[in-house]
Amino acid sequence: MGEFELIERIRARSRADDSVLVGIGDDAAVLAPTPGSQLVVTTDSLVAERHFTADWPAADIGWLAAQANLSDLAAMAARPRWALLALTLPEPDTDWLDGFLDGFLDAAAEAGLNLVGGNLARGPLNVGVELIGEVPAGRAVTRRGARAGDCLAVTGTIGDAAAALALGETAGRALRQRLRRPNARLRAGQALADAARAMIDLSDGLLADLAHLLSEGQGAEIELDALPASEALLAAVNDHESRWRFQTGGGSDYELLTVLEPGTDTSALSASAGLPLSIIGRVTDSGRIVCRSDRHAVPATLGRGWDHFSGD
Amino acid sequence: MGEFELIERIRARSRADDSVLVGIGDDAAVLAPTPGSQLVVTTDSLVAERHFTADWPAADIGWLAAQANLSDLAAMAARPRWALLALTLPEPDTDWLDGFLDGFLDAAAEAGLNLVGGNLARGPLNVGVELIGEVPAGRAVTRRGARAGDCLAVTGTIGDAAAALALGETAGRALRQRLRRPNARLRAGQALADAARAMIDLSDGLLADLAHLLSEGQGAEIELDALPASEALLAAVNDHESRWRFQTGGGSDYELLTVLEPGTDTSALSASAGLPLSIIGRVTDSGRIVCRSDRHAVPATLGRGWDHFSGD
Repeated sequence: MGEFELIERIRARSRADDSVLVGIGDDAAVLAPTPGSQLVVTTDSLVAERHFTADWPAADIGWLAAQANLSDLAAMAARPRWALLALTLPEPDTDWLDGFLDGFLDAAAEAGLNLVGGNLARGPLNVGVELIGEVPAGRAVTRRGARAGDCLAVTGTIGDAAAALALGETAGRALRQRLRRPNARLRAGQALADAARAMIDLSDGLLADLAHLLSEGQGAEIELDALPASEALLAAVNDHESRWRFQTGGGSDYELLTVLEPGTDTSALSASAGLPLSIIGRVTDSGRIVCRSDRHAVPATLGRGWDHFSGD
Repeated sequence: MGEFELIERIRARSRADDSVLVGIGDDAAVLAPTPGSQLVVTTDSLVAERHFTADWPAADIGWLAAQANLSDLAAMAARPRWALLALTLPEPDTDWLDGFLDGFLDAAAEAGLNLVGGNLARGPLNVGVELIGEVPAGRAVTRRGARAGDCLAVTGTIGDAAAALALGETAGRALRQRLRRPNARLRAGQALADAARAMIDLSDGLLADLAHLLSEGQGAEIELDALPASEALLAAVNDHESRWRFQTGGGSDYELLTVLEPGTDTSALSASAGLPLSIIGRVTDSGRIVCRSDRHAVPATLGRGWDHFSGD
């Protein structure tokens, strides 16, 4: 099967709303942006043996590729609109492609995303996704805006994906699902748009991603006892020290970390976000990230803090 | 050198005009589209050993990656605005990255393109580029619109890149430059926007790309004697049959093939396009692509025509 047949296979399965004036099959797609909106654009690539392994079902790879990118739009409070797919495949394998599309297009349909174009090349497996979203003018939430005294809050629960990665086959189904079938927090991102002074998605791990929200001279205090954990994580990981490591150092949860004014009513925000929002600490002017607990001793490698300028 | 240092290296060298509200370094870029415009979006990946070889200077790879994508925007008569770069690199090699950026950013600056974001991953070398351009609403030129009797015209000269590929090291500098340093015909694309009924860029070869401009039942007659050849091609390839093969079957010239109303004044169009425009044939209702010559016998494999529905 040649490139054109594969493209036709993708085109036949992709949806296109009224905003897609020219879709898959021309030199480029032509799109009608919403008047008064600004564009929010992102790209992320998944590479075999780094973001997934050969034993993953193709549908999980497609799902993850979509969600990892959708998560970047969620963190800007954007509404997903259009996707491009740049696939490099070792061979034209229609079974693999069909499986990949099952996962990718399921995620796209749920998110209201139109697949409007892309590229197929032959070579080592590489999955490139580019998304274009929209926000009302001036309403995108960036990483900049935290002030000392602000609250730090996360959506949902964190640490599951890192635990699934560490436990491998012994991780239960619930943890493994968080790693392979994450859900970008699109509704929460938009619900937080007004209240959030700054926002980022948790893809590299809480402490690493938190560092991106802090300006020079700023720091943060994290309450380890307040980190939200799923029942699956609590059941699978008994000792609090391992759990803290998964929750503070592990990536790929695709929850949102947001900076809120002190005193923000999180229960109202949780309701409109459609999932729990937990206050996990606050922004300081100490220049360091410090983790603390009232219940247990904090291991030195967590508790000594983490200087995000030197990486120390 | 880690991912963040490499990203900072890219950010420091990229330009951003007033349309870039949030550029490199956040979860996504935020862009202000031009009111009244539509978006034109495309992506293309370059893979080692398929689109370039290991001996290519990194700057040539960067240049080609930009131009191959710009050529898709040119073919839609779009004005380039913003670029995302998805690089998968075997290792964080700053010399290679600097060279790549030399070529990519030169091409971007010439085309008025802002590099606004991207992704770095580790793995087998893969260069993914996504471009967003703009057209005034309703002014994009697609592949659809040819009518029997219309003229076919190409910009510039064709066959150089294919000759350079076939001749390898023995190809002269001028031919090799066409392969490694092509120039997307952006000015010509916009100059042709009103006159063109349909347009495509020549990336797969004249006959293959021409087939995409024809609807079911349509065909074309190509005048081989009218195919524009560069002086370098005429000097390097003496026999007309080899030349024809390079000109009809070889890709990567990145010229534009356009469909014009019969009787269109091509000299005025050439002047505004800034490069020669040659009439090379016409659209028919024969369902077949036929090549003909008044001067020489046409080899059966060219002259028997090419049925774009069966590929025969």
